[in-house]
Amino acid sequence: MKHTISVLLQNKPGVLSRVTGLFSGRGFNIESLSVAETIEKGVSCLTLVTSGDDAIIEQITKQLHKLIDVIKVTDISESEYVEREMALIRVKAEASTRAEVLRMTDIFRARVVDVSPKSYAIEVTGTRDKIKAVTELLKPIGIQEIVRTGTIAMTRASKKI
Amino acid sequence: MKHTISVLLQNKPGVLSRVTGLFSGRGFNIESLSVAETIEKGVSCLTLVTSGDDAIIEQITKQLHKLIDVIKVTDISESEYVEREMALIRVKAEASTRAEVLRMTDIFRARVVDVSPKSYAIEVTGTRDKIKAVTELLKPIGIQEIVRTGTIAMTRASKKI
Repeated sequence: MKHTISVLLQNKPGVLSRVTGLFSGRGFNIESLSVAETIEKGVSCLTLVTSGDDAIIEQITKQLHKLIDVIKVTDISESEYVEREMALIRVKAEASTRAEVLRMTDIFRARVVDVSPKSYAIEVTGTRDKIKAVTELLKPIGIQEIVRTGTIAMTRASKKI
Repeated sequence: MKHTISVLLQNKPGVLSRVTGLFSGRGFNIESLSVAETIEKGVSCLTLVTSGDDAIIEQITKQLHKLIDVIKVTDISESEYVEREMALIRVKAEASTRAEVLRMTDIFRARVVDVSPKSYAIEVTGTRDKIKAVTELLKPIGIQEIVRTGTIAMTRASKKI
């Protein structure tokens, strides 16, 4: 089963290695990971997606709790949540395909962020499945480059009430 | 100086630990990091932002090159590039502040992705500076939660020509 785990941590050198080391030490692969600062100084928020046996994931989250510099660990996938990721996709855009690329951009509420005579770079956000759908549809036109953030997630507040 | 480094790597357990370990081993802090799959099976793209002495960063990128499972390393900040990140922000939205939150959402081309009787969760994308501006403006209204992806970046194709 897929798990989306959110970790609040002190942003110090070495913390990230220790967190990722806990997963690799058990042979668990991290499918995606995002870490960035929060509004609190020195505190970062890390979101990671991994899949595997529920019991082992629970063990790992318990071990994460024990790490110095880790403030809070939540397995977000245990409740209802919103998940989003972003991709920057550079797609071939020559005279014959430009209109089609712009149509796709419109349909998926994406945005063109860079233009060159032969390509468009578009920014698209959505669930993992949406990003997958967009890339599948752009592939035949010609994807030249793709960079993705990992998934980030937030528990739905409407479900907390 | 700030460096945005892009690393293409084989997505195997342990690779991420080794990459982040190279930075922490030298006391370098990673400000943000994003890693996700590319369209090529088994290959992930990692983007990290760090700041520090140019010469040492160059040494680290050289060591990254030497790691098994690392396919390609680029210091994107050496050329012209597009950078973007995404944030999910849950902001207090009571009767008196709802209109103001929606105005902000509009101005920053953000999107409401979750609604509860007392809060809105909005998705906003942009440069590091834009995300900072949005959070500064929403703070007085009341930010309840924030999750950010790390920065991702792409070299501007228009500059390659």
